[in-house]
Parts: sequence; C-alpha cells; structure tokens
Amino acid sequence: MSRKIIIDTDPGQDDAVAILLALASPEELDVLGIVAVAGNVGLHHNATNARKVVELSGRTEVPVFAGCARPMRRTLVTAEHVHGDTGLNGPDLPDPKIPLQPQHGVDWIIDTLMASEPGSITLCTLGPLTNIGMALVKEPRIAEVIGEIVMMGGAYFEVGNITPAAEFNIYVDPEAADVVLRSGVPITIMPLDVTHQVQSTPARLQAIRGLGNRTGHAVYEMLTFSESFDLRKYGWEGAPLHDPTVIAYLLQPELFEGRHCNVTVETASELTVGMTVADYWHVTGRVRNAIFMRSANADGFYTLLTERLARLP
Amino acid sequence: MSRKIIIDTDPGQDDAVAILLALASPEELDVLGIVAVAGNVGLHHNATNARKVVELSGRTEVPVFAGCARPMRRTLVTAEHVHGDTGLNGPDLPDPKIPLQPQHGVDWIIDTLMASEPGSITLCTLGPLTNIGMALVKEPRIAEVIGEIVMMGGAYFEVGNITPAAEFNIYVDPEAADVVLRSGVPITIMPLDVTHQVQSTPARLQAIRGLGNRTGHAVYEMLTFSESFDLRKYGWEGAPLHDPTVIAYLLQPELFEGRHCNVTVETASELTVGMTVADYWHVTGRVRNAIFMRSANADGFYTLLTERLARLP
Amino acid sequence: MSRKIIIDTDPGQDDAVAILLALASPEELDVLGIVAVAGNVGLHHNATNARKVVELSGRTEVPVFAGCARPMRRTLVTAEHVHGDTGLNGPDLPDPKIPLQPQHGVDWIIDTLMASEPGSITLCTLGPLTNIGMALVKEPRIAEVIGEIVMMGGAYFEVGNITPAAEFNIYVDPEAADVVLRSGVPITIMPLDVTHQVQSTPARLQAIRGLGNRTGHAVYEMLTFSESFDLRKYGWEGAPLHDPTVIAYLLQPELFEGRHCNVTVETASELTVGMTVADYWHVTGRVRNAIFMRSANADGFYTLLTERLARLP
Amino acid sequence: MSRKIIIDTDPGQDDAVAILLALASPEELDVLGIVAVAGNVGLHHNATNARKVVELSGRTEVPVFAGCARPMRRTLVTAEHVHGDTGLNGPDLPDPKIPLQPQHGVDWIIDTLMASEPGSITLCTLGPLTNIGMALVKEPRIAEVIGEIVMMGGAYFEVGNITPAAEFNIYVDPEAADVVLRSGVPITIMPLDVTHQVQSTPARLQAIRGLGNRTGHAVYEMLTFSESFDLRKYGWEGAPLHDPTVIAYLLQPELFEGRHCNVTVETASELTVGMTVADYWHVTGRVRNAIFMRSANADGFYTLLTERLARLP
Repeated sequence: MSRKIIIDTDPGQDDAVAILLALASPEELDVLGIVAVAGNVGLHHNATNARKVVELSGRTEVPVFAGCARPMRRTLVTAEHVHGDTGLNGPDLPDPKIPLQPQHGVDWIIDTLMASEPGSITLCTLGPLTNIGMALVKEPRIAEVIGEIVMMGGAYFEVGNITPAAEFNIYVDPEAADVVLRSGVPITIMPLDVTHQVQSTPARLQAIRGLGNRTGHAVYEMLTFSESFDLRKYGWEGAPLHDPTVIAYLLQPELFEGRHCNVTVETASELTVGMTVADYWHVTGRVRNAIFMRSANADGFYTLLTERLARLP
Repeated sequence: MSRKIIIDTDPGQDDAVAILLALASPEELDVLGIVAVAGNVGLHHNATNARKVVELSGRTEVPVFAGCARPMRRTLVTAEHVHGDTGLNGPDLPDPKIPLQPQHGVDWIIDTLMASEPGSITLCTLGPLTNIGMALVKEPRIAEVIGEIVMMGGAYFEVGNITPAAEFNIYVDPEAADVVLRSGVPITIMPLDVTHQVQSTPARLQAIRGLGNRTGHAVYEMLTFSESFDLRKYGWEGAPLHDPTVIAYLLQPELFEGRHCNVTVETASELTVGMTVADYWHVTGRVRNAIFMRSANADGFYTLLTERLARLP
Repeated sequence: MSRKIIIDTDPGQDDAVAILLALASPEELDVLGIVAVAGNVGLHHNATNARKVVELSGRTEVPVFAGCARPMRRTLVTAEHVHGDTGLNGPDLPDPKIPLQPQHGVDWIIDTLMASEPGSITLCTLGPLTNIGMALVKEPRIAEVIGEIVMMGGAYFEVGNITPAAEFNIYVDPEAADVVLRSGVPITIMPLDVTHQVQSTPARLQAIRGLGNRTGHAVYEMLTFSESFDLRKYGWEGAPLHDPTVIAYLLQPELFEGRHCNVTVETASELTVGMTVADYWHVTGRVRNAIFMRSANADGFYTLLTERLARLP
Repeated sequence: MSRKIIIDTDPGQDDAVAILLALASPEELDVLGIVAVAGNVGLHHNATNARKVVELSGRTEVPVFAGCARPMRRTLVTAEHVHGDTGLNGPDLPDPKIPLQPQHGVDWIIDTLMASEPGSITLCTLGPLTNIGMALVKEPRIAEVIGEIVMMGGAYFEVGNITPAAEFNIYVDPEAADVVLRSGVPITIMPLDVTHQVQSTPARLQAIRGLGNRTGHAVYEMLTFSESFDLRKYGWEGAPLHDPTVIAYLLQPELFEGRHCNVTVETASELTVGMTVADYWHVTGRVRNAIFMRSANADGFYTLLTERLARLP
C-alpha cells in the first residue's frame, strides 16, 4: 500500500525535481496534493510552477493549492538570484492548464488531516514552513494527527547558505520553523549537511538528459540553470540537490544516516537568526525532537532519481 | 449611520464590560460579530463567556465565533489568578443557549473584511492579537481593507503588569502584535497608561449597581471580583478598567489624549519581551504607526459607561 | 565623622553641580578623589571639566584622575547636543591649573578600596559605569570592600531619554551596569523617575544666582545652558537635575523614597538595550539587588542645594 | 631575529604543550612573558600551571603574570570535566619555585606594548580573551601598537564544543572576544575547524613519549589524560590538539590554510552565545577582520611539534 503524502513547496528547480520523483513513484507514494508557499519566489509564481511540474509529469489529477503569501512574522525574502525571476528558469514549460484549487492551502491541509486516520499522512516540506506553522496555530489538534514531517531545511556543520549561519528555508520563516520543531510531531530533517553531498556532477546530469524523455530533458535544463549559483560560490564540480532528498528518504531511507537529537531554531538574534542549532553531540539536556541527517549515499541517490525519472513521460 | 465593528476578545470581566458597552450603543456601533481568542483563560472558556455576555445584553442576534486556541509562536500564558478559573468569575450567569458559529473566527474575519467596503470596518481588540495576526498572514490583502484597529494593550510609562516590562495582552502573543503593528493599518492603542487612570472606585461601582437592571448587577459582581488582584498589588482605591476604553474611544474620542508615534514590540529578549516601546518623544527615526493614548477623562468615561449600561436589560 | 566617598563622573553641567554640592559639605562628606569617565563627552574633556569644577570650589587638594576612554564593549555614544561641545558649556571657567593625577582612575579606585576598612567607602557614580565595571573585573575582591554604590542612572516609569527605553548613563555602557548590578554590592539608584521631579524652575535658578558668589553664578550659567534641551523636549517649566540627587541622598536621605527590588539591565536587544527593568511590584522571583528611588522632595532638595552652594567661594 | 610574543593562557594540557613549543623555539620566538587568565580552571590554578610548565622547559627566566580572575561580563564557566581539577592533571609536576610576578597581567600587557616599537609584538591567546579585551578598554591606544593577535578559539564548520554553537574559549567571555574582533588589530584565528584536524593518534603520542626526555614524558601524560574526554565524545582515534596550532602557525605558517573574512561573535542570544559567525563565503557586506583558518597539515604539525619538544630537557 502506498504512503499518503502532502507536498508543501516553493518550486524552485530542486523542488520541481522532488515533486517529479514523488509523482514518478505511485506504488510507494500517494501524493494527496501539493501546496505552494512563498519562498524561493513569490506565491503566485510558486503556485504556477507547481502546476507546470504536475503537467510535465502527466499526473494532472493531483490537486495544487496556494497557501501563504508571506512568512508568519517577517518580511518575505526571496532568491531570484538562484532560481531566476520565475523561480523555475531553465526549461521552457507551457503555461499550466490545470486550475489552482480554490481553497486556501492551509485550510486544505487542516481539513485533510482532520479527516484522516491519525498517523496516516506524511508532510513533505520543501520550502519555508509557513503553511505548516499556520496550520498548527489555527488548528492545534493536527499535531496529534500528522504521521511525520520530513523537511528539507537547516544546516549544522554546513552552517548556512543565505547567511553565514542560516539555510534559506528556515531563514525565511524561523518562527514557523520554531512552531513546527516544538510541535511534538515526529520530524526528519534533510539539512545542507546532506544535500551538499548529493551533487549534480556533469556525469549525473548527462545520465538524466540521456533518458530521452521530456521529463529528463526538462530536469537537465532546470538543474543546469540553478546549479550555476552554487558552482560559482563553492567551486564544486556539481551543485547540491536539496529537496529531492526528502522524497528519496521516503523511498529508500537507507540512503541516509543521522542522529535523533534536539534541533532548535534561532529567532532572537539578527546575527544568527534562522540557524538550526542541532545538539548533535547531546551536550545539552534539551529534548530530542528530530532526526537530523548528516550523510547520504550520493551514488545511490542519483541512481534512484534517474531510474524514477525514466518512468515519466 | 452606525460604525461597523468586529470585537476580538478573551472575556475576561473587563472584556465583558467592553462588549456590553458596545452592545448597549447600537445607534453608534454595529457589532458585526464577536470572536474569541485564547488569553485570559483558554479558548473554550472565552468562547463560552462571550456568548454569556451576549445573552446578558439581550442582543442574541450578534454571532460569536471561536478563533485561535494558542499564540502564533509561544506557549499560551493565562491569567486565572486575576479572572478566576472560568475567566468570568463573579456573577452567576447561565450557560449560553446561543450557539457558537461553526466557522473559524480567523476565516470569518477574513471573509467579512474581503466582502466589505474598504475602510468600513473597525477591529476592536481586547485580548492577545493572535486572530488578527493570523488573518494578516493568511490573507495579507486585508491590510488594505481594515478601516482601523483600536486595541487595548501595551504600556509605556506604566511599563508592565504581567512582567516588569510587559502588559498581558501583548506579552501573550508578541509576534502577533508585531505583525499588526507593522501592517500599515491605522492603529489606536489604549495602553495601561490610560486604563490605570479609569479606576473602579467604590462610588463608581455603586453607581453601576444602583442602576437596578440585571446588567448593572452583573457588572458590579464582575468588577468586584476582578479588581481584588489590582487593589492588593497597587494599593489603589479602585482597579484599572482596561478593555472598555476601546469602546469608549469609539463613542467619545474626546475622552482620551495621546500622540501619533512609533510603537514597536520587543520580541528578541526574554527580559523585556512583550514591551511596547513607544517613541513618545520622537527621539528615533522610526515610522509613526500608531496613536498611543496617554490620558483619559475618568469621570467622563464612567459617566458614559454607566449611562449606556442603563440601556440594557 | 565625615563619610568617605569617591565620585566617578563625566561632567557635564549636572555632574558639576553634584561635585560642588559634595565639596561644599566637608563636614558630612570626605571626597577622597574624583575619577573621570567617557560619557557626556570624551574622556579628555571630562577630565578637564572635573578639574575646573574642583578649582571653582576652591578645594584644590582633592585629586582628579582619568579612567576609561571607552565603554566595556560598545562604541562610545556622547551627548554634545545636551551639554555643548566641551561638556560644560555655559560658564566661562578658566583652564585648570591643578594636574591630572598620573595613575589610571580604575587602578586608583582599586588601590584605594583595597587599602581601606571594608565598608568604609561609598562610590558615587554620575556617569556610565565603565570604571566601576572594569574595577570589578580587574580586581573582583573589591566587591567585598565597597560600602555602597549610589548611582544616577536608569529609569523605569520615565522609561528613557537617549532612546525610548534607556537612560543615557546606562545606555552608554550597559555591560558595565550589568556587572555592577550583579556584583552583590549594596546599591541605591537615582533614576529619571526621581530626577525628573527636581526641576530647575526659574525661581529656583534665580535663588542660586542670587547667592552672589562665583559658584552660584557659574551654576546658574551651567543649568541655563543645559536645561534648554529638556525644556524644548518636554515643555516643562524647568529641566530635570540628575546627578546632584546622588549627593543630596547622602546628605539628606529622607528627601527620597523608593523600593528595594530587583533591577536588571537589558543587554540582549537593540530595541531596548540599556533599559533598567525594575521589578518594582515584585512580580518576578529575581533577587532584590538595589534600592530603586521613585520620588523626591523637590523643595527640600533645592533648599539643600542652594544652602550648600552658598558655602563655596 | 626572533619574533617577540606574549602568551595569554589558561593552562590546560594543550596550553601547556603550546607554551613548551614556544619555549623550545628561542631562535624564532622571543617569549616576553606569559599571562594567566581564568578559563579551563580558576585563575589561581592557571597561574600555578603556567609556572610549572616554564620550569619543566627549563626556561625559568620567562616571567609569569596573573591577569583576570573572571570574564568581562559573565559568570566564569570552567572545564574541570576535561582538564581535571587542577587544570593540568596527568603528569606529576612539582610545585613551581619561580615566583608569580606582582604586577597585574593586564597592566603588564599594556605597559609592555606601550613601551614597544609599534607592530613588533604578537599576542598569542590560548584561552578566553578577557585579558586582551580588558587591556583594549583600559588603554585603547594599544590597538595601534599590537602587531598581530593569533588566537585559538571559535569554530564555524565544527560549530561548537562547550555548547552546540560555541567553542569554549569564546563562550567563556564572548564580550571580550567581541572587543578584540572589533579592535582593528590584525587577527588570525585557529578554530576547532583546524584543531580537530590535528589529532593525537596513538602513533603520534608514542613518538612524543619516545623522545626520552622529561618534557616528552610529561606531554605524553598530559595528552593521555585530556584526550579521554574527546575520544569518548567523538569516537575518534585521537583527540584534537587545540592551542599548539597557534605557535605552530608562527613557526610554519604554511601548515595552515584559511580565508580573510568577517568573524563576528554572537552575544545577544542564549541559544547561540559565543558562536563565531565566519562569513567564509563573503555573503554579507561585513568588514574582513580576521584570517579564519580551515585546514591544517596534521603530519607536518606533529613532525614540527615532536622535533621541537626534543630540544627541551
């Protein structure tokens, strides 16, 4: 039986690849819906991009919702310098035909969870945690219903990307991340520590282009566009591939290793705001609230990704 | 033509008196609805209390909604030590017969505002600002639609009550207060500086009891219960009457004086969290975002209150 | 027998008046020395001004030292907009002939204390607490030796003057204030709450000018200069007179009333940095570390001041 | 001509090895004096330990001073759990015969610098930066005279050891570190990122013991004692060797690589206090104030260390 998931996302090229990986795996993953959130670019673009990706996959029955257009407390920060002005620069994807669902994404998340068997739904978050934080405040009872949250966000040994101390997803809405991390829901975190290990080397990108299908071609164009920022910054051979690690973890958890420990978000200081302080060595008495991943099997990850993308049109 | 208002509240004895003052003034104020929020006590009690007060007033056509059960980021702090275990200890009011509306209070606020003539609705907030902060994040366009927010909350020269630096309503949800104060909506604040000036002296309480109606009797019992905390603490002859100042300001603005200045909420430091830092002397360059009231005509206020309560059953 | 005191100061017109009040009272106060600190203006000016004031008083046997030229952690903020470019604008006082002592003021404070009978010396601080904070870190044993610290600084109900939340002396070096307030030394604080009550009305200034001596004339010119800032800001009839309250308290403690409570300095948040959070109502469990004065007998204060200034040349 | 250095230290087994490395290299390094500071253990122990180490080296002409017994603002935190109750557990070293110099270490640093050719003296700091911070506040002109500060402290990619976000030396006195990092003095930092790379493997320790001299034997016993904490925590084959990297850098700078970037210390938030936020990727506009080392040639380091220790008795 396939696992029910909700994908909360701000696509974003790497979000798009994560969505495609999920939609290519219907035997394992039942994607109940996709909810856009403001992050990499504004909400309007992200909601459009999510529908473009759904159409690219051919899975047009999967509904797409728009959630929050701004963070819970702070002014929205975006990252067009990485993702391009539309958030999904690279491939030339047609305007989506499938409609945006009329319900607010936060309400759809709440209603879906409250109507579900407790523990049966996994939230996969690929962007700022605004929608999930808002849902937890608006309807606190969902904390007892969510099966698990698997998120891409944060960093510990890799420290930060948008600032020297903070990863982008957490930095954009640290208060929402704080609400989520204190919610008591089981959480697994894919931080930069992991995503910096799964780099899109030329050989790996060529393997995806070589699939010959339209999806492989589009993914190649997405990642070629978005990787240029990290290649310039870090001088690596390939760029990190962040969000697909969340879906890969659901499909093959043995690809990743980490520790169950306390993770607390910095919200008080402007210097370090958005930092995910992981008590990886258990030197504090703080409660263990998340599995914080630290390493990935990069070859296994790209093998999985490429094999699954081949299943799409 | 009467002014359309929404009352957001955590009753609370003084909230109850504010609601009664509004419901007693239908020629000036059209109460579209009342929304409960967690604050003085938990949401369940507050939603029940709001309905009890509506029934006490005889205005059972006014709908009552339940909003958020917890603050936007922090753990809920309550004040049973002031208000009693039900939040409305004192009078013996019957269980309410009017139903709680099924819609979530945040959604009703959003829907009501988005369907209204821009600028036509005033939000009167008597408790933590959670519902309004949540509405502004969930649907940012309401910031352009709200006519004005008149809030009881904060303190400057009177500094704090729940902590040495913070007033209760702001302390409970400082992040929500921050969202509201940065929203660009016109705001008028009734802080402790004002409410400590309108004290329920024995003569004023006797005047209310002497009205002879059931409302006057209940208000007398409410205030006699809740004032005991402040009388012990401050050694005053009468207790401050906080929330009714919001409604009194709508009815007779000339009772109050203050300044248009910047007001910023402290959210970073545990020592001063929830403080409303009013730039009353304009010594910073921060934008003037609120009218911060500093003085009240106490006799005028009690004359108004007593005269209006006499109109109720 | 007279009480041994050390005056730590950044003169400053009101510092100057405080020094004169002390030097005019040899039967009660034995001024062991005066130490300058950076504050109202830079250290060089303050050290010069202290010697000018000593010479004005005729008490040229009192040694003057220079202490620290910068705060313990932050960049120095000065207040030439209040005190003039020399810090002592107003009267035309001659350049001092008495020398500045060669020893660093912090070391002189330490050596004097360590050579004294424990409890026998009172520190009177009229400026930022840098020198005292530095002495407590460099030689922690002085905490057991200091008899008492009486300081002008901070505010609670009057909140702030240099920022909306902070009084100038504490704001300039909040870390030093924190060291002092946590030192365990008995402390009495004269905050803005007190000093705003002792206003230099025209009648009071004329009484000082009318003394007919050179000191009375110089004090009149000092206060006429420095009061203009506060008169414009607050619209009062007279300006607050801050630092002389410290000396007046030593001479006639019955002029002042306050409470023994906890006082903690805000150092974590830029919005409220330098605020002295007084737990005046004992709502926290924090240790009572200072007597925080709240009210003054203004007529008694000016009577004392004028009578003592008459004793000087 | 040898380079003039002052060693500021809280020995500490690894401090001791650093001191020995310096004293074993008189042709390159002229150790003007050693100043103890509170840190790994209390000041009294550290000042005793520094003299024991000087005697062990036979260089008894090098003067030892005691500096500050507590941090600039915070309560002292020590690390007996790592270093033992004396701070130098392991070898059985005799009580020192050479006297502690009577002058306060902070004053000796100031006097020595002010009497020196500008730029001619390097400060080597192996513990909390209290003494240097205090000297910079007490005599700000030394900032123009110090040639360079080479410090062991902080972490970026290795994040923290005493807390999840902070390295011990910086954590103990973050305000002092902040004063130093903002002083404008040229600074080179050896953080955990470097020191975790130079691990005392069994083979390396045996090579030191195998030297056959008393120093090699004592160093072996020191490191065998202190490494046990890190071996348990990290599960490594050898423990990091922190402080000797500072001296090794002066002797063979080519053993280390890093970047010139901004380094700012967190002082505002309790969660991350003491973190050294290095803008290693230049993503902020903050001024480049330090060379932050990231990698070390571990074999080269141990070869140097062992060869130099062989020169001592």
